[in-house]
Amino acid sequence: MADIITAAMIVIGDEILSGRTKDKNIGHLADVMTAIGIDLKEVRVVSDQEDDIVAAVNALRARYTYVFTTGGIGPTHDDITADSISKAFGVPCEYDARAYAMMDAHYQKREMEFTEARKRMARMPRGAEHIDNPVSLAPGFRIGNVHVMAGVPAIFQAMLDNVVPTLSTGQKLISATIHCPFGEGVIGGPLGDIQKKYPETIIGSYPKYLDGTFWTELVVRARSQEMLDAAASEVQAMVDALGSEPA
Amino acid sequence: MADIITAAMIVIGDEILSGRTKDKNIGHLADVMTAIGIDLKEVRVVSDQEDDIVAAVNALRARYTYVFTTGGIGPTHDDITADSISKAFGVPCEYDARAYAMMDAHYQKREMEFTEARKRMARMPRGAEHIDNPVSLAPGFRIGNVHVMAGVPAIFQAMLDNVVPTLSTGQKLISATIHCPFGEGVIGGPLGDIQKKYPETIIGSYPKYLDGTFWTELVVRARSQEMLDAAASEVQAMVDALGSEPA
Repeated sequence: MADIITAAMIVIGDEILSGRTKDKNIGHLADVMTAIGIDLKEVRVVSDQEDDIVAAVNALRARYTYVFTTGGIGPTHDDITADSISKAFGVPCEYDARAYAMMDAHYQKREMEFTEARKRMARMPRGAEHIDNPVSLAPGFRIGNVHVMAGVPAIFQAMLDNVVPTLSTGQKLISATIHCPFGEGVIGGPLGDIQKKYPETIIGSYPKYLDGTFWTELVVRARSQEMLDAAASEVQAMVDALGSEPA
Repeated sequence: MADIITAAMIVIGDEILSGRTKDKNIGHLADVMTAIGIDLKEVRVVSDQEDDIVAAVNALRARYTYVFTTGGIGPTHDDITADSISKAFGVPCEYDARAYAMMDAHYQKREMEFTEARKRMARMPRGAEHIDNPVSLAPGFRIGNVHVMAGVPAIFQAMLDNVVPTLSTGQKLISATIHCPFGEGVIGGPLGDIQKKYPETIIGSYPKYLDGTFWTELVVRARSQEMLDAAASEVQAMVDALGSEPA
């Protein structure tokens, strides 16, 4: 069995915690990780405070294969991600020569001033590698197992597309979904028995509620087709058996 | 000046981390907290693993005024929030007599079986108080400063409506938004100077990008109208001055 590769995400920004901006990056990263066989195990949303960012980065980079951050790499005073990541790794935060030259040329070509604020976006921890940004040029960066990307969803997604081919991916978790017309109160007992019988699978039960009606989506996840089929067919049989009972 | 009241949120559930379900509760809680003057300082999304839930609950309940959890209080085997919260507080997880009787009566009235799975929803840490659930009856609960609510958004929102009147609220953070037709690279420098001049305000800069155009929303937050007006008018003047310069 292939190694299990894990990941955590840190969403950096007061605007998410205040409700002003609704995060769209958690769901996107979760989808991409699932698609490539990496288990996203934890997400933290933290404020624009250096101590909070450093604590989250150091807690999570020690625990998971990869860490992905979004937010706080723009040119303004509240963009402190590069400084915080540098502090977490104990290295200086400094102008990256290649990023600086690239951005300098970019602004010169457009006859725009390469302001002090814009120069901030060329700063990264010493030793970091670029993550290319095809949308707005200023790169993200990787240091150790931490990948630092933009918070604007279009830029985050483009950066992540550049990161994915560099990752070790695990044996993909495959899944089967069984629609269940009953609420969890009906199926909870027998479903738990099936989970106990197939401990190598992960059986999830997701209650749905709309306009006064409850139903449930049952999802079986496994790392082999054989195991998936065995557990999923028992779950389907359980639902079928309940459906044939008197209402 | 009134005390500053802080909060953290724990979103519990593999379905969020796999991308299968897109969280809608973080944004709602953030909006409500902002509206009532409580600072949401941190959010963690954790998997359906007891150790992970216990660690998050104990880290956050010690640090913030309030903790709010969503998810994992249904009737199935993967609903382990009540057990995990009990473990975090070092108290037994047991049937709550009032919840049990209420649910028993509810199912009897509907001629439905009060299954073992449904009975799980009457379990809570010893000493917990109910959070009423007007949607689907089974209550959430509060123990210490931790409020445990459902993950289904309609139920979470209804439970939160019942919690809000019980909370101590802080002096509300008020805000002013200044639309800025320039990207952050232009305004980053002068905006940082204004932040330094008004350290009691929080000045945020939120880059927006759509179809090749960048602009920025500048948000000034403060706990007094006087401080807000002073800082916001300087930000507005900065934007106006830039707008009158040659392009």
